[in-house]
Amino acid sequence: MFFEGSEKKAEILIDSKQISLLDDINDEFWSALVDCSQAKILSSISNEYCKAFLLSESSLFVWKDRILILTCGETQLVKAVEYFIQNIGAQTIKHLNYQRKNEYFSNAQPSCFGDDIKLINLLLPGKAYRFGEMDSHHNYVFHLDNDFIADKDDITYELLAYQISAQASQHLMQEKLTRQEIREFLRLDSLLPNFIIDDFVFSPYGYSLNAIYQQKYLTIHITPQMDSSYISFDSNINLLELAPTLIDILAPKSFDLMCFNENEFEAKLTQYIPEEYISKSKVSKQLDNGYLVNFANFILPQKTFLEPIELDISGENHTL
Amino acid sequence: MFFEGSEKKAEILIDSKQISLLDDINDEFWSALVDCSQAKILSSISNEYCKAFLLSESSLFVWKDRILILTCGETQLVKAVEYFIQNIGAQTIKHLNYQRKNEYFSNAQPSCFGDDIKLINLLLPGKAYRFGEMDSHHNYVFHLDNDFIADKDDITYELLAYQISAQASQHLMQEKLTRQEIREFLRLDSLLPNFIIDDFVFSPYGYSLNAIYQQKYLTIHITPQMDSSYISFDSNINLLELAPTLIDILAPKSFDLMCFNENEFEAKLTQYIPEEYISKSKVSKQLDNGYLVNFANFILPQKTFLEPIELDISGENHTL
Repeated sequence: MFFEGSEKKAEILIDSKQISLLDDINDEFWSALVDCSQAKILSSISNEYCKAFLLSESSLFVWKDRILILTCGETQLVKAVEYFIQNIGAQTIKHLNYQRKNEYFSNAQPSCFGDDIKLINLLLPGKAYRFGEMDSHHNYVFHLDNDFIADKDDITYELLAYQISAQASQHLMQEKLTRQEIREFLRLDSLLPNFIIDDFVFSPYGYSLNAIYQQKYLTIHITPQMDSSYISFDSNINLLELAPTLIDILAPKSFDLMCFNENEFEAKLTQYIPEEYISKSKVSKQLDNGYLVNFANFILPQKTFLEPIELDISGENHTL
Repeated sequence: MFFEGSEKKAEILIDSKQISLLDDINDEFWSALVDCSQAKILSSISNEYCKAFLLSESSLFVWKDRILILTCGETQLVKAVEYFIQNIGAQTIKHLNYQRKNEYFSNAQPSCFGDDIKLINLLLPGKAYRFGEMDSHHNYVFHLDNDFIADKDDITYELLAYQISAQASQHLMQEKLTRQEIREFLRLDSLLPNFIIDDFVFSPYGYSLNAIYQQKYLTIHITPQMDSSYISFDSNINLLELAPTLIDILAPKSFDLMCFNENEFEAKLTQYIPEEYISKSKVSKQLDNGYLVNFANFILPQKTFLEPIELDISGENHTL
């Protein structure tokens, strides 16, 4: 069974002088917003800074003046973004960042990045970039084009692992795997001390986690299926420093790093990325909105010959 | 302007005891067949073994008992295959091989490989494989499942170059470039002595070539556009031996090799592939129809940081 783990992602910052704070907004609004993308709210946790919703397809984080939403599968996140802009008011949006990664099966998606940003662009002006190569892993970024300049301390990280080891896939695809077993597999006790955790094991497999501690957040989404596995980490804790541990656990054939405002990206790659991985793509740009965006794709060289994958001709079309 | 260079490819062998030889069939039939895929015949050359048609999107070769057809862009080669089977008769087909590479923009294609083989499978039983990884370069192969066993001497090669150097792209995108200038750029005089050549320069750019000499054939298709460039070579001459020259000319960031019945594939990789290229994927299988299929994808490590590609939001949707 195929599932598109790769997420669409939006971060929106509002001018809190113009409207009441986002954390005053009731859950019905967030539920309606999430519905627009064809996802559902499963549960939530909160602390004094943030409310974090676990979704049927990924996550929504709401801070006083900012939201971060990720949705995967065949959801249309752009419809939730449109709903937010229309309800909150375009003039209230200080900053908007809409991202989409390459997908395993882009032909099975209801829209492509070009379609999505055309829709957003009807409401707000912007610029768009592609980080990474067209025939390999890449990450599209659209950002609102206005006079907003990001805070230098607004530093976030993504680590996206593709084609994890057979051993890790098999472990994560076991029947009746518990949340606790997955937390242990990911060594979360040592990685996330003191965090409030909200996590969910999907049937027949798949796992999502939101974790918050003061102003820190981490979200993890696992699509463990062999041959199209995808595990994403998105956080404002330093995932470059955690990369050696996460790579050791997952042993992916390939992974991407995408960082906003990490000034020591290159030095930290040298420090933290295991030597056996080769850099296939490295892209960097200081965007007009003040964010320094760095993207890198690493691969593991293939030394021995593998067998091809035999396909089930009677299976789902779009997964071939 | 974006163009999908990546080809669909079909090779079909008939039982010449059952029907008259394919080279007795008139050009109207081949023209109607090519029409089915939404391509057109531009010109042809022939010798005593083969007739080679240059198409508006790639090539058709007709031998006495075999055809080879490649079509690129948004053509539907599978419709030409269906036409051939329906007109020649399924019982006359000894061997059929239908291939599709990963595309730059699979979402812009009218069908995916899964759709295509479902259509063929209504007429003929088969097996299907994927050589290469789902999130990287790969090549799908469907073959007829019967008692046919390929001749060991039926050896063919594909070399597929992606993201050629900026210098090579710029050279090949020059206005009013002549066939002779492209032949010189590709050093064809030394690579193809004695071959009859039929070639065409497309407007505003793009180049196709068919070349035949006795029972040898080579077809080259060039999509030179920066950032989505693709240059394919398909031949029964040994492209592994030519790889050092072709890679030197094109300096691609990545290339694939796909060989049928090359028994010394691994040794020849060691011998001919420049050391700076890293093997990202290597797949091998002896198919039930007797073909030993080898696939390899090589990449050039990216050492320095590049700028992202800025996208034209008002441009064609499906090229984002």
